[in-house]
Amino acid sequence: MGVEFAKGHGTQNDFVVLADAEGKLELTDERVRALCDRSRGLGADGVLRVVRSEHVADAPEGIEAEWFMDYRNADGSIAEMCGNGVRVFANYLVHANLAQPGGFLVGTRAGDRAVVVNDDGSVTVEMGPARVFGESTATVGGRAFAGIAVDVGNPHLVCVTDVDLAELDLTVPPGHDPVMFPHGVNVEFVTEDPLAGSSSVTEDPLAGSSTGTALSASAIHMRVHERGVGETRSCGTGTVAAVAAVLHRAGLDGGELVVNIPGGQVHVSVGDQTSTLTGPAVLVGEGTLSDAWWLSP
Amino acid sequence: MGVEFAKGHGTQNDFVVLADAEGKLELTDERVRALCDRSRGLGADGVLRVVRSEHVADAPEGIEAEWFMDYRNADGSIAEMCGNGVRVFANYLVHANLAQPGGFLVGTRAGDRAVVVNDDGSVTVEMGPARVFGESTATVGGRAFAGIAVDVGNPHLVCVTDVDLAELDLTVPPGHDPVMFPHGVNVEFVTEDPLAGSSSVTEDPLAGSSTGTALSASAIHMRVHERGVGETRSCGTGTVAAVAAVLHRAGLDGGELVVNIPGGQVHVSVGDQTSTLTGPAVLVGEGTLSDAWWLSP
Repeated sequence: MGVEFAKGHGTQNDFVVLADAEGKLELTDERVRALCDRSRGLGADGVLRVVRSEHVADAPEGIEAEWFMDYRNADGSIAEMCGNGVRVFANYLVHANLAQPGGFLVGTRAGDRAVVVNDDGSVTVEMGPARVFGESTATVGGRAFAGIAVDVGNPHLVCVTDVDLAELDLTVPPGHDPVMFPHGVNVEFVTEDPLAGSSSVTEDPLAGSSTGTALSASAIHMRVHERGVGETRSCGTGTVAAVAAVLHRAGLDGGELVVNIPGGQVHVSVGDQTSTLTGPAVLVGEGTLSDAWWLSP
Repeated sequence: MGVEFAKGHGTQNDFVVLADAEGKLELTDERVRALCDRSRGLGADGVLRVVRSEHVADAPEGIEAEWFMDYRNADGSIAEMCGNGVRVFANYLVHANLAQPGGFLVGTRAGDRAVVVNDDGSVTVEMGPARVFGESTATVGGRAFAGIAVDVGNPHLVCVTDVDLAELDLTVPPGHDPVMFPHGVNVEFVTEDPLAGSSSVTEDPLAGSSTGTALSASAIHMRVHERGVGETRSCGTGTVAAVAAVLHRAGLDGGELVVNIPGGQVHVSVGDQTSTLTGPAVLVGEGTLSDAWWLSP
């Protein structure tokens, strides 16, 4: 048999990619857990099964993409989308000659997603609309942080702050309002880099932002606590939510920012109708799983 | 280029194996650290470079083994031997047709080590002599544990106890006597399984033990704190030290015990002149590293 795999990461969110064009792999929860186990498997945050959309029985209706990203969390559960995973997935398709560099669609359980594999190896992913829907408060170590609630398909609470992000203890989940977020919330803590020479500019430095209102930063720093997971080195939807919140605070209806996260750096563009996330996607290696291990992982 | 790798583990102590028969890989500390990084690399506790002994400039004199295990810790530093790593190494040699199943030598910085790749895929490794050299005390959470000091090439303090091992907090290093262990010490906590039907038998149940003195256990459970590392799921020399200490307490000069560790189960035989460790060695998969990643990991 020889199940083919690759290992890769996007801003240190890492994945095992499994090649399964015809949808013949029996990818049980147990095998996903074993693959992601960092001692007895390959080790990863999740598994990306590469399968032709026509062979995915539970794909949403209307998928036009040739290739479908069957995403599994490390515990074996199914997830709809992953902004870092889809970059690795797209890069793998090009690497394996299953797609050409440039723009194409990737099928996901959240529908088709447009991606562009750029010349420098980075990947731009359409992340859908980011919608600000209120204000709330997160608490860390008894201290309250004012936050902006943003929906990017999943709920986020973005707290722009002046405190040193390194000092926040995110080993326990930040407190949040259970009425506003009945299913929990991903919480982002954000600081803004002051623009060189000025903390408030009148000329908009950002290509694509459509209003003249001042923005005090062109780059932000972020740490994120993902619900049900803990602090992570990167969260794709979290970076989009963070940029949407910073733009909202500045009275802008769109714009682009660099987001520095523990796992690296991404570029986020937020507009009225949709948003995009551009970031690195690294393939570390590829090979085949041992037959004996696959049969009894 | 395409650097060839395999990923494997022995009782959940996991390794990246690099094929480098002619000794041409430039295996810098930075590359070792990147390979072992669990987010941006393959992820492992260490790297095992497979190289012909003749191509190892710093091999000890007198090595007769055809193949040398160039072992690197995850931080890039060199280690002499690793009881779990050498099992994975031996299994890889057989898998890659570089050695035949059965017995052969593996070269290490601690000298040639005899190994046997058994029919069931387990590997028996010669671990050298285990020498009891005194008594001392370890402290955990303010509580003192009487221990036996054992030298297995590196220093161990084995504490046989009745407490529930699960209750020990090994997130901080156990306290030890800095005079007796000036370079630190690996500390093992051990409980004994009572023999069925009796806590003290007169008939020796252990093949290979040469005295008639009673032994109250044929299997033990162990947790280990490795100096400079923290608690690990397995420690090869630690299991040998634990068995030597349990035998010593029973007044035996040799014998064999099953050792249950968090990462699995091994069999240890201790004699006057040497000891052996038998345990599983699992190859998860194999492949090639991305050239781009290897050049700039």
